[in-house]
Amino acid sequence: MDLNELVSTSGEWLRGSGPESDIVISSRIRLARNLAEFPFISRATQQDRTEIENTLRDRVLEVQESGELEYVNVNDLKVIDRQFLVERQLISREHAESEGARGVAIARNEQVSLMINEEDHLRIQVMHSGLDLQSAWEQIDQIDSLLAQKVNFAYHPKLGFLTACPTNVGTGLRVSVMLHLPALVITRQIDKVFRSLQKISLAVRGLYGEGSQAMGDFYQISNQITLGKKENDLVKQVGDIVPKLIEYERKARDFLVRESHENLHDKVARAYGILRTAQTISSEETMHLLSSVRMGVNLGLIEDLQIPLLNELFIHTQPAHLQKLRGVELDTADRNIERARYLRRHLNKSNGDEAN
Amino acid sequence: MDLNELVSTSGEWLRGSGPESDIVISSRIRLARNLAEFPFISRATQQDRTEIENTLRDRVLEVQESGELEYVNVNDLKVIDRQFLVERQLISREHAESEGARGVAIARNEQVSLMINEEDHLRIQVMHSGLDLQSAWEQIDQIDSLLAQKVNFAYHPKLGFLTACPTNVGTGLRVSVMLHLPALVITRQIDKVFRSLQKISLAVRGLYGEGSQAMGDFYQISNQITLGKKENDLVKQVGDIVPKLIEYERKARDFLVRESHENLHDKVARAYGILRTAQTISSEETMHLLSSVRMGVNLGLIEDLQIPLLNELFIHTQPAHLQKLRGVELDTADRNIERARYLRRHLNKSNGDEAN
Repeated sequence: MDLNELVSTSGEWLRGSGPESDIVISSRIRLARNLAEFPFISRATQQDRTEIENTLRDRVLEVQESGELEYVNVNDLKVIDRQFLVERQLISREHAESEGARGVAIARNEQVSLMINEEDHLRIQVMHSGLDLQSAWEQIDQIDSLLAQKVNFAYHPKLGFLTACPTNVGTGLRVSVMLHLPALVITRQIDKVFRSLQKISLAVRGLYGEGSQAMGDFYQISNQITLGKKENDLVKQVGDIVPKLIEYERKARDFLVRESHENLHDKVARAYGILRTAQTISSEETMHLLSSVRMGVNLGLIEDLQIPLLNELFIHTQPAHLQKLRGVELDTADRNIERARYLRRHLNKSNGDEAN
Repeated sequence: MDLNELVSTSGEWLRGSGPESDIVISSRIRLARNLAEFPFISRATQQDRTEIENTLRDRVLEVQESGELEYVNVNDLKVIDRQFLVERQLISREHAESEGARGVAIARNEQVSLMINEEDHLRIQVMHSGLDLQSAWEQIDQIDSLLAQKVNFAYHPKLGFLTACPTNVGTGLRVSVMLHLPALVITRQIDKVFRSLQKISLAVRGLYGEGSQAMGDFYQISNQITLGKKENDLVKQVGDIVPKLIEYERKARDFLVRESHENLHDKVARAYGILRTAQTISSEETMHLLSSVRMGVNLGLIEDLQIPLLNELFIHTQPAHLQKLRGVELDTADRNIERARYLRRHLNKSNGDEAN
């Protein structure tokens, strides 16, 4: 797969369409699976890993259910290309940073990716733009069933699917929804909301999964429990809470528009102004400002911008994307300059301004 | 005098022309004088004050040396109009805020103003745009001489002119130059420079004189000593130091352009971006941002703006100007909204943008 062909698009998770896509960025489901005849990765030899990769790669590529899959040998990739796949949410940070034989099969439309030799032998991921858990579940269930006919997954009649980490045993299922919650952040309600979610065993994470910071007011909500429940119930548990979160966020936005209109408009307009004029800007500040602008567009406070362009900027200003788009590797200082240039070019284009 | 006729212009002190006007905003000279036959203001009765005003007003208006003078009865003015005259540097804050019979004669071009019943019976001020102390001195000296033929100024053969405050006794002269020193502020050299000035008995003040904060990197340098020196020497002392300060500021700007070009450009460009997009903005933040933009224009980092427009914005965004331009009195919150609107309208016009 030529990663350079992907770079100019924004990928599935930031496509910016699908139901409730002003607040719900993407719906993602993953299944953790292991081959019964091999030890878990932590105990596998290099030889084991190579065999696991060969076995799974060939089987996985036969599953052409969800568009053509292409295989990327992650171990052979340059650091920047691994980082690129992380930014697109096609592989995990752990997968990028580990060592030894490993790879990922990716569907052209980036809705499906199958990581081989991550924490488990196989991690299947299906991601849809917007709030679309049910069809994501149907798609991943079908892929899982097809694979189960070809390989022998480690399965215990009482425990269910066996996984490297006990927290995934049972269904091996993680259902997660990425939400954009800037108004709950501004109104300082976000912590309260998260505490309520934790009480019902839902986890809250930042943009790039476990341990990552919440950047740009993006949050992932996912199930903690994988054992003792049916897959459908787990999908339903997350799916049922999302409309409530959407409602809280919308109420907070309405409140801000009503009670603090000038300050909200000011925040949004300044963010847009800085993004259009900065000469050097970090990734973190970019996310933060794009988040304000995104809310501004959704609230009609900015009229000359479209959400898909903004989503594209979110991903294209990430370090690896930026460097791949530019075609050279850049240190942090030069990336910040290139990022500012990229933002000016794309944000000033839309209203006929010159980038200066 | 109809103050509303002045409001749409930027006045003399921010005309933005004259020698070295990228750094030297204005050159100002004032003389403190008192009538021999009346007590100082602190001991004068209301009756005295009224007589002083009547006497001086009639004499002053006969001096049509420097263009037509018009008289404004400050005691009759609304608070907003007094504030307006302070913002234009035509009267002092003390004159605006005190009580009783008092007024000011103002030349149409605002180069000359004569305050009656300020701290002294008469304060003559001549202000020229840019670095132009010598001709300001010649002009004020001529006005003083003409008045001295008409009234009897309190004068002691040994001490010189007698004034209400001992710090003005002798010449009654204050020579001051308003400088824009943003690069010395950024490079943290400003305090060192000011300490050196204090050693040679020069005072440093903010934009609106004694006790006022240095806003927008504007500083007034003036003589402390008024006694025991000839007027010409006092003018020369301030006049001689200014080229050195200009040189320091230019060196600091060169240093920033050379060693920190991206950061400087970033600071300037963001300031411009915020001024063009903010929906609510305080007077202080406006000054601060306009100061960066002004330096940016002078260094060629911003090309689509002219200094006279910027100087006009400095004065027009002051509270009283803003309200007079709008034609209504506004509270702080509404002023901040109106100020942002005014800035957007004027800064976006120049490059064909819509104010949004």
